[in-house]
Amino acid sequence: MHLATVAHPGGTSAAVLDGDVWRALPAADLSAFLAAGSPLPAAARAGEVIDGAVPVLPLPAPRKVICCGLNYAEHIRETGRELPTHPTLFTKYADSLTGPGDDLVLPAGLQVDWEAELAVVVGSTLRRADRATALAGIAGYTVANDISVRDWQYRTLEWFQGKAWDGATPVGPVVVTPDEVDPARGLEVVCRVNGEQVQRDNTRTLVFDPADLLAYISTFTVLRPGDLVLTGTPGGVGVAREPQRFLADGDVVETEIPGIGGLRNTVRFTD
Amino acid sequence: MHLATVAHPGGTSAAVLDGDVWRALPAADLSAFLAAGSPLPAAARAGEVIDGAVPVLPLPAPRKVICCGLNYAEHIRETGRELPTHPTLFTKYADSLTGPGDDLVLPAGLQVDWEAELAVVVGSTLRRADRATALAGIAGYTVANDISVRDWQYRTLEWFQGKAWDGATPVGPVVVTPDEVDPARGLEVVCRVNGEQVQRDNTRTLVFDPADLLAYISTFTVLRPGDLVLTGTPGGVGVAREPQRFLADGDVVETEIPGIGGLRNTVRFTD
Repeated sequence: MHLATVAHPGGTSAAVLDGDVWRALPAADLSAFLAAGSPLPAAARAGEVIDGAVPVLPLPAPRKVICCGLNYAEHIRETGRELPTHPTLFTKYADSLTGPGDDLVLPAGLQVDWEAELAVVVGSTLRRADRATALAGIAGYTVANDISVRDWQYRTLEWFQGKAWDGATPVGPVVVTPDEVDPARGLEVVCRVNGEQVQRDNTRTLVFDPADLLAYISTFTVLRPGDLVLTGTPGGVGVAREPQRFLADGDVVETEIPGIGGLRNTVRFTD
Repeated sequence: MHLATVAHPGGTSAAVLDGDVWRALPAADLSAFLAAGSPLPAAARAGEVIDGAVPVLPLPAPRKVICCGLNYAEHIRETGRELPTHPTLFTKYADSLTGPGDDLVLPAGLQVDWEAELAVVVGSTLRRADRATALAGIAGYTVANDISVRDWQYRTLEWFQGKAWDGATPVGPVVVTPDEVDPARGLEVVCRVNGEQVQRDNTRTLVFDPADLLAYISTFTVLRPGDLVLTGTPGGVGVAREPQRFLADGDVVETEIPGIGGLRNTVRFTD
């Protein structure tokens, strides 16, 4: 199933794709739908067709958005590091997120970089979960770009301040359930800037896969339905290039995982 | 004013201290009271006396809990680093917090360490605030202990996974408004383990003061009423001692800021 939060003339709704139409799920958005714990297959058949539906940010209210860094072998090598024994984790906020077609509005003068990523949507409450429980607790997968403000990220030892700029992490457009896509079998993760491919790798090469990450995180903090875990980015980021390359005002960033969907966001610098 | 969330036989309530009695504020807890934006002095006079009131975790539902590391000159020196030009920031969750007298329940076998801290409670919505706006947006100050799981903190470059263990960061018991305490004039921050003083320093020596931190954070992410900013810990943490010292099952950690109040928490290791 393909799930989304869709905007329509009357507001927003959680929705499920049925052929080429979106049918309403009983909640105003996918965060609320997952939090309510409604059974998906039953809900999917019940809803009315939503006319004029446009997918927006699918999860507007995750309580936790946790990101893994250094999780693709090639990206790890380009930063000059060894393969990790534990996942490197940092955080964003619900405020950090924005929709699949929204502009990325940031103050001018920052070193803004791309990081295409597979994102995992939590479907169950997970507390000290083993791998099997974590895997069964995945609601689905979506696309994210962990847009990073490199000059702030590297001001101090902790990356958080370069990672959690409000409205700068596009997510969506749909959440695809695990019966349809399997990162272990392989999903291509692609980033293009103004049409030029700058990142491409496959989730088969993840050091820590989605179930590893959810189980590991749940050891120290509970995960709940609608929480979001970003699985890390492949090689090809701008900061690791020679010469370094950062996003400019008006640049168009496309982030795509074939089988899930794509984001298209334009950088807009403000004073 | 001294504000709190108090437990009483009928539930919980936001409350204000009037002499030696707690008077009810119109909300179930201080998070909800601050979010509603009620004027404090008016509310303070209106409430009924709450019999059997016991202060608990004052802010059960902050959307953001942001911590500053390396902010006391002596603590920075003990870690072998230079004075910073920017604050080092990392995050916890509402789930990380626990009450002023609660046990710190953690799995056995972790390297658990203390970090006594002054915590700042946000009172206004702050977005790209300057220092003066940030200072005016402080609702008050409370006491926190940024209990840290050192083996997890240092597994990777990012400290988050050692800092955000559920229910391991005691906060409270009261929030004191800025008319009564001023970190710039100086507040002693003290930590004792089983009665032995292990940390003592003064907030006069903070590299980044509360207004600096709120203004800086608000550059990249909005702060809202009830959010919490922990200002960093003085020298004397266990991991920096020779030999290193970590907390054992049954150890009693007291965290005190005279003029605000004190926490008293017992470490309980589980299997």
